[in-house]
Formats: sequence, structure tokens, C-alpha cells
Amino acid sequence: MIKRYGFTIGLVLSFLLSAVAHYIGEPAFSPTVQFFISAVAVIFVAGFLGKATESVAHYAGERLGGFLNATFGNAAELIIAIFLVRNGAFEVVKASITGSIIGNMLLVLGLSVLLGGLKFKEQTFNVKLAGHNSSLMLLAVIALFIPAAFTRSLTTLENEELSVIVSGILIVAYLLWLYFSMVTHKNELADEVVEHGEPAWSKGMSVAFLILATVMVAFESEWLVSTLEQFSHQFGLSELFVGAFLIAIVGNAAEHSAAILMARKNKMGAAIEIAIGSSLQIALFVAPLLVLLSLFFGNPMDLVFTTYELVAIGVAAFIASSISRDGNTTWYEGVLLLVVYLIIGIAFYLV
Amino acid sequence: MIKRYGFTIGLVLSFLLSAVAHYIGEPAFSPTVQFFISAVAVIFVAGFLGKATESVAHYAGERLGGFLNATFGNAAELIIAIFLVRNGAFEVVKASITGSIIGNMLLVLGLSVLLGGLKFKEQTFNVKLAGHNSSLMLLAVIALFIPAAFTRSLTTLENEELSVIVSGILIVAYLLWLYFSMVTHKNELADEVVEHGEPAWSKGMSVAFLILATVMVAFESEWLVSTLEQFSHQFGLSELFVGAFLIAIVGNAAEHSAAILMARKNKMGAAIEIAIGSSLQIALFVAPLLVLLSLFFGNPMDLVFTTYELVAIGVAAFIASSISRDGNTTWYEGVLLLVVYLIIGIAFYLV
Amino acid sequence: MIKRYGFTIGLVLSFLLSAVAHYIGEPAFSPTVQFFISAVAVIFVAGFLGKATESVAHYAGERLGGFLNATFGNAAELIIAIFLVRNGAFEVVKASITGSIIGNMLLVLGLSVLLGGLKFKEQTFNVKLAGHNSSLMLLAVIALFIPAAFTRSLTTLENEELSVIVSGILIVAYLLWLYFSMVTHKNELADEVVEHGEPAWSKGMSVAFLILATVMVAFESEWLVSTLEQFSHQFGLSELFVGAFLIAIVGNAAEHSAAILMARKNKMGAAIEIAIGSSLQIALFVAPLLVLLSLFFGNPMDLVFTTYELVAIGVAAFIASSISRDGNTTWYEGVLLLVVYLIIGIAFYLV
Repeated sequence: MIKRYGFTIGLVLSFLLSAVAHYIGEPAFSPTVQFFISAVAVIFVAGFLGKATESVAHYAGERLGGFLNATFGNAAELIIAIFLVRNGAFEVVKASITGSIIGNMLLVLGLSVLLGGLKFKEQTFNVKLAGHNSSLMLLAVIALFIPAAFTRSLTTLENEELSVIVSGILIVAYLLWLYFSMVTHKNELADEVVEHGEPAWSKGMSVAFLILATVMVAFESEWLVSTLEQFSHQFGLSELFVGAFLIAIVGNAAEHSAAILMARKNKMGAAIEIAIGSSLQIALFVAPLLVLLSLFFGNPMDLVFTTYELVAIGVAAFIASSISRDGNTTWYEGVLLLVVYLIIGIAFYLV
Repeated sequence: MIKRYGFTIGLVLSFLLSAVAHYIGEPAFSPTVQFFISAVAVIFVAGFLGKATESVAHYAGERLGGFLNATFGNAAELIIAIFLVRNGAFEVVKASITGSIIGNMLLVLGLSVLLGGLKFKEQTFNVKLAGHNSSLMLLAVIALFIPAAFTRSLTTLENEELSVIVSGILIVAYLLWLYFSMVTHKNELADEVVEHGEPAWSKGMSVAFLILATVMVAFESEWLVSTLEQFSHQFGLSELFVGAFLIAIVGNAAEHSAAILMARKNKMGAAIEIAIGSSLQIALFVAPLLVLLSLFFGNPMDLVFTTYELVAIGVAAFIASSISRDGNTTWYEGVLLLVVYLIIGIAFYLV
Repeated sequence: MIKRYGFTIGLVLSFLLSAVAHYIGEPAFSPTVQFFISAVAVIFVAGFLGKATESVAHYAGERLGGFLNATFGNAAELIIAIFLVRNGAFEVVKASITGSIIGNMLLVLGLSVLLGGLKFKEQTFNVKLAGHNSSLMLLAVIALFIPAAFTRSLTTLENEELSVIVSGILIVAYLLWLYFSMVTHKNELADEVVEHGEPAWSKGMSVAFLILATVMVAFESEWLVSTLEQFSHQFGLSELFVGAFLIAIVGNAAEHSAAILMARKNKMGAAIEIAIGSSLQIALFVAPLLVLLSLFFGNPMDLVFTTYELVAIGVAAFIASSISRDGNTTWYEGVLLLVVYLIIGIAFYLV
């Protein structure tokens, strides 16, 4: 009973509590308390949004459903980021994009590989998918690297122009990738499929829940973002660190549990698809979409990441690619990924 | 009839027209018109030189012929570059070397993989050759990267010294590679061979045509180069962009058509050999040869490329290597290569 | 007789001679002569220490013995470096760490692959080991790269902190690697094992010799280090070059002969284990251990390498990984490694 309704209860309670905390505010709820309450609530509403997306995707049929899952699997992160973009908090947005990418490639993948590897001596998966994933990761690194490399010789306007064009190209490349992996080469890349099971809700309920979840995520994001500055200030944390580690870990909680579950069931292919696929979605779809959306807010964001962020993304992509491209993993490779995540985390903390 | 003599007619007409345009000059022929006429003529004379080289190579026997093809396959680019070096236009030379390398690795290879992949679901080729090609590309990147990385701590004289020594080493490494791939490990690396068919000309005619073609390329290069500055100026294009994109595309037109033709015949191994082989030839043979030749002009050129050029070459080598090293290609990998080419092109255009 | 006792005679004579040269000193023994005498003596005492370590490892049983070999295989380099750290000669220490890493990855591996490849057309080895080695090399590059990338934004204290933490993490990662490769996945990674044969000494003698050899290496290191400055000065060599090339080649002489011997016996797996394994040991164990040890000398050393050193290490790791990850080698791949070593060597000489 508790198991069955535990999630619903957690969702409703944490959401209401964070609403109360937000509107009553200090001194009853200090910014730190507000931050933690809304962080927990974000995990629940993001999970709710994920379930609703999956359920709608189920009714939409295989192809359109796959497309919905692949483009809105990171809807919660996207919504949080949109609030940050609207507030002009570009540094935090980019930090949280960085954090999502490296969090998925290093932490989620590392934990999955380690915990899977402790149970099974060696876990294998489709080499072709791994090869394509590597090439796409490299594209993501290149696409984020080029605007930064050229930024010094460009005027502000040229920088924006370059960012907008590159963003457009990336979105097209991502859509073509979906077409490739879901239509023309579906069978070649198929591995263990992430099973979703029968949805618990009817078609109408699913759509209603999708709308409800989106609204809840939107509110919750606003509340979380509003506590950020004070919270970072109080603990002497840089916005870079908060965005890249705290927000990213909170926002990716659903991926963590799903990927590790798959790894423990010896479905390493599915675990990698969740972790790497989510990274790619953020780099090739969410980040460029934010650049394009920012144009409508009249305060354009560019794609120029800091050197530290590029180092982190590049390093994560290289080690993840080096480990995944031979089509099998062992527990020690999980350790390697986690070690790199730890080193980057400490460096970001100290900066 | 037109099909048979079309090339000859185009060659003669475009060459004569560009001669007229060059010597009459303005106002009848504006620099822009001159530029386009000589660009078209360069495509024809480069094609003519390629055919004559192949024909002479055929009569020279397998081994010497292979060597001639492998070292003078980029003779047209070499001649154009020599004219630029003599004029001291080092920036344009290096830009066109960069452009040739990335043009072959990204545009030629990308179009071949894409167009081949639209016809065949998956195209395979010899993995060993791909592995060696990757390592050689990496050597090329390293060899161009080291002089740039150390340049700040060196005096002008030491810089020249380093460039000359590295150039000498690269040429020796390239000659050893030819020995390796054509003599000691010929059979291991063999894939679909690029078929040349019986030459249309006798031995004597081939040699005569080789000389004639070389002279034509030399004149045409001079005429093209003489319009460059005014043309770039008029359209507000940087010499970097003109060298790296316009000249490189014109100079590599022959490789484009040959590689795509092979890919459409499902001979992906041959297409890759043309594209990657041509890149390697330029990086490991043409570029260092130009450095050594420049010593005789009394105006030594170094091997120090700009950061932008190194970024472009490094990025191209990594993505080409990532895509080719598993021994098979699909249409989407062609898209990836073209997307990277596009992004680099836009960045170079804006700089 | 000479063959049997040649090593012992060389060891004793070179050690005594270098002791005499050190204590008599100038004018009888110029710094240059002292340097060369102690360089030769270092080769002998390092060889002696290596044999004693192996012999003790033999009696310690398979598991503990493997651990001893894997952690103290570079004991001589470690001892030399400790003397340099105590003297505060951090630049030379880091240069010699760099030199050891690239010397093993490029010179030792390159000579082994070339000389093995001249005898055998193609040499194969365990692909899985190669894949793990690649990933570990990448970790080493990342771990040395991160502190340097973040150093500018950090205070001296934060820099030290980061170096100490990263060092601790690397040592843990290295110990886990030993556990992985010697315990949980021993059989998967096994290739041709480096055979040591029956030790020539009894258990007691082995321990005594280990202590004697350690003492001899310690003295010899002190003597070598004391001549360094004057020697470099006299020949106009930078400490970077002396540390990275001369000391590294002297200190790795044992690995050179052992790896080449294995390659000529067609045991390429063993040769690679010696060369790459030794590099990894220095990057992931010796270097961080020195950082931690320096804390006790009251003069903490950080892990921040110069850009040139990072370029050299990164370049070496990439080309070594590119060549070894397909599980076979040919003579030309040896040429590639040596060419890169040569180019780096010349650049370091000129700086």
C-alpha cells in the first residue's frame, strides 16, 4: 500500500511543503531549508513528468512515442533552465548544462557500470551503438568547443550569430539522428530495449497528468531557482559549483535510478542508452534550444562555455567514449568514471 | 561526342578564357570575374594534371607508379602553394593547407559517406587500413601542433630550425609509410583498389601531357593567386576563409568527384583512401615540402599554424578517425562529418 | 665466467668509481665526468634493485609478489625523485616524471614495436588489456591536466589542496587497478606473462640484497643529482631537457632492454605490459606518492605540470593508445612512436 502510493504521497507532500516554504519564506523557512525542500520536490515532480511523458508516448504509438521520449526525456531540466534563462542567469544555465552532461556520462554511467560490474563479471552491449554514441559525443564536444575557441576574435554580435547558427545546425543534426536510429537503422542499433511496461493510466489521464506535471515542474523550478543565490552565498559555494553539481544531480535523479536498475539486471545496453543518450540530448538538443528560446526573451544567450566547463565536458566525453567503445564493461571501468567525476567535482568546488 | 571531348573542350576554353581575362584585365574583366574564370580553369587543369600523372604512373610500373600517384596526387595544390610561398603569402598557404586537409577529411569524406550511405545501408572496408590511417592522422595533428605549442618560448631562428627539422622528419616518415603500405605490408592493407583502367594515351604522349599540364597549372595558379587579394577585399572575406575554403574546394574538385563515384559503387575503401590519403599527403608531405622549398626562396616559412587552423585540423582528424576506425559507415556518419565542416566553415567566415 | 659475473663486476666497479669521483671531485673529476660515471652507475644499481625486487617478490608468493613488482618496479626512479624533491628541485622532478612517462610510451614501446616488427610481420596481444590500458592512460592524462587547467583561478593553498586530494585519489585508483588486474579479472587480462625464472638467490640473501640495492641507489641518486646543475649549465641544456630526456633514459634502461627482448621473442603483450605498465605506474603511483611525501619535507610539491610537459604526455598517450588499442602492431607503428618521440625531444631541446 505504502509502496504503491508512496510516490504519489511523496509528490503531493513535497510539492505542498515547498509551496508553503516559498510563500511564507523567512524567518520560518531559511533559504537553506527552502532549497532542500524544493530540491526534494524537484526529484518528485521530475519523476512524475517522466512517467507522464512515457505514458503519453505509449499511446502515441512506437515511432512518435519514441520521438517524444527522446526529445522530452529531459523536460524537467529544460523547464528549470528556461526559468534561469528568463532571469538572465546564463552562467548558472551553462553550469547546469555542463553538470547534466558530465553527471550523466560520469556519475550515472559510472555508478551503473560499477554496481552492475560488482554483480556480473563482464557486461556486454551493442558495439555499433557505442561507436555511434562516441561520434555523437565528439560532435557535441566540437560544437561547444568551436564557439569558445573563436569567441575572442568575434564581436558580441558575431558571437551571437555563430551561437544561433550552430544551435540550429545541432538541432537538425539531432533530429536526423532520431530519424536514423528510429527509422532507417532501427534494427542495427537495437540492444536491450528500455522496457516501460503497460502504463497505469488511461490515454486521457495521461495527457491530463502530462499537463499537470509540466505546470508543477514549472512552479517548482521557479521556487528552486529563487533560493539559489542566497543558498550559494550562505555556504560560500560558487554558482558554477551549485549549477554543475547540486542542480544537475537533483535534475537527473530519475536517470540515476533507472540506469542503475538496468545495470543490475545485466541490461547494460539500456543503462548506457539512458546515461549517454541523456547527455547527448542535453548537448545536442536542450542547450541549442535554450539559445534559440533566449532570442524570444530579448536577452540572447550564447553557446560560449567557460574553459573549465569545456575541459570538464571534453574530459568526460573522452573517458566515457574510451570505456564504452569496446562494447563491454567491468567494475573497474565504473571506478575510472567515478574517479574522474570526483576529480572534476573537487576542482569545481575549489574554483 | 560531347561526353568524350567535353573535358578537353572545357580545359582548352577555360584556360584560354582565363589567360585573356588575366592579360586584358580591368575594366573588361573585374577581379571577381577573373577569380571565377580562373577557379573554373583550375578545376580543369588540375583534373588534366591528375590524369596525366596517373597515365605516366601506369607506364612506370606498379611500384614506381604507386609512388608517383601517392606523392604527386596533390601536384596541383603543391604548385599553387609554391606560387603563394614565393610571394610570401604564408598565411594564405597555411590556410589552404588547412582547407585541403579538412576539406578532404570532412567535405569529401562526408559527401562520399552520405551519398554512398543513401544507396547502401552499410558500407564496410578494411579495418587495418583505417587503424593505420587514424594513427597517421594523429601524427599529422601532433606534428602541426608541437611547433605551435612551443613557438612562444622560441626565438624566430629556433622556430625556423624546429619547423625545418620537423618537416624533414615528416617527409621521412611519409616515405617510410609508402614503403610500408606498398612494399612490406601491401597485402594486409589492400582493400578495393582504386581502378584506373587502361590509359587513353601512349607512353610518350603521357609524358608530354604531364609536362604540358604542369605548365598549365603553373600559369593558372599564378593567375588565380593574382586575383585573390582584390577578390577577398571586395567581398569582405578574410584571406583565411578564402584560402581555407574557396581555394581548397577548387583545388580538391578532382578528389571530390572520384571519391563520391567510388562510394556510389559501394567501394568505400577506395573512397576513404582518396579522401584520407589525400589529407595525409598534404599534412605529411606537401606542407613540410613547402617549408623546405621556402628555404630556397630566401624567405623561410615555418610550420606554425594559427590556433584556429589547429582547432579545425584537430577536430577534423578526431571526428574522421572516430567514424572510420570501426571499418563501416552509414549515411548518418556522413551527416556528422558535413555538420562539423559546416560549423567550422561558419566560424572561419565570421572571424 | 665474464658473462656470469659481468653484471656484478660492472655494478661494483661503477659504484666505487662514482663514489671516488664524488668525494675527490674537481679538478680530478670534472662535473661532466662525474655525471657520466654516475649515470652508468645508476643503470647498474637500478638493474640490481630490479633483480632484488623480483627475487623478493618471488618468495613473497604470486599475489603479494605481483603487487611488489607492480608498485616498486620503478623504485630506482622513485628514490632519485625523492632526493630531488628533498632538494626542492620540483621542476627537475616533474620533468623526469614527464620523461619517464613519454620515454616508456614512445621510446621503449617504439623500439620494441619496431625491432619486433622487423622480425615478425605482425605481432598480436590481448585486446582487452590494451583497452584498459588506454582508459588508464586517459585517466593519467586527465589527472595531470585538471590541476594545471584550474591552477590560475586558485590560490597557492588551494592548488596544494587540489594536488594532494587528486594524488590521494590516484593512488586509490591505482591500488584498485592492481586488485582488478591481479585478483578479480586476472584471467581475462592475462597475456604472455613476463617470465622471471627461478631466482639465483636464497630468501635471506634476496632481502639482504634488496636492502643493499636500495642503499646503493640512494647514494648513487644523491651523487647523480649533485652533478646535475653544473652539468646542465656547462652544456647549455635546460633542466627540463636534462630531466625529461637524460635522467629518464638512464633511469629506464632496465625497462628498455627487457621490453625489447620480449618483443624480439614475439611476446608483444609482455613488452607492452613493461612499457605501458611502467608509464602508468609512474603517472598514477610514483608522481602522486611524491606529492604526498613532499608534505613531510615541509616543502610541498604540487601536481601542476607545465604546458609543454602536458602537451608531451597527452600526445604520447594518444599516439600510444591509437597504436595499441587494436591489439596488433607492425614495424611502421614503431616508427610512428619514435618519430613523435624525436619531435618532442627536439622541441624540448630548443626550448
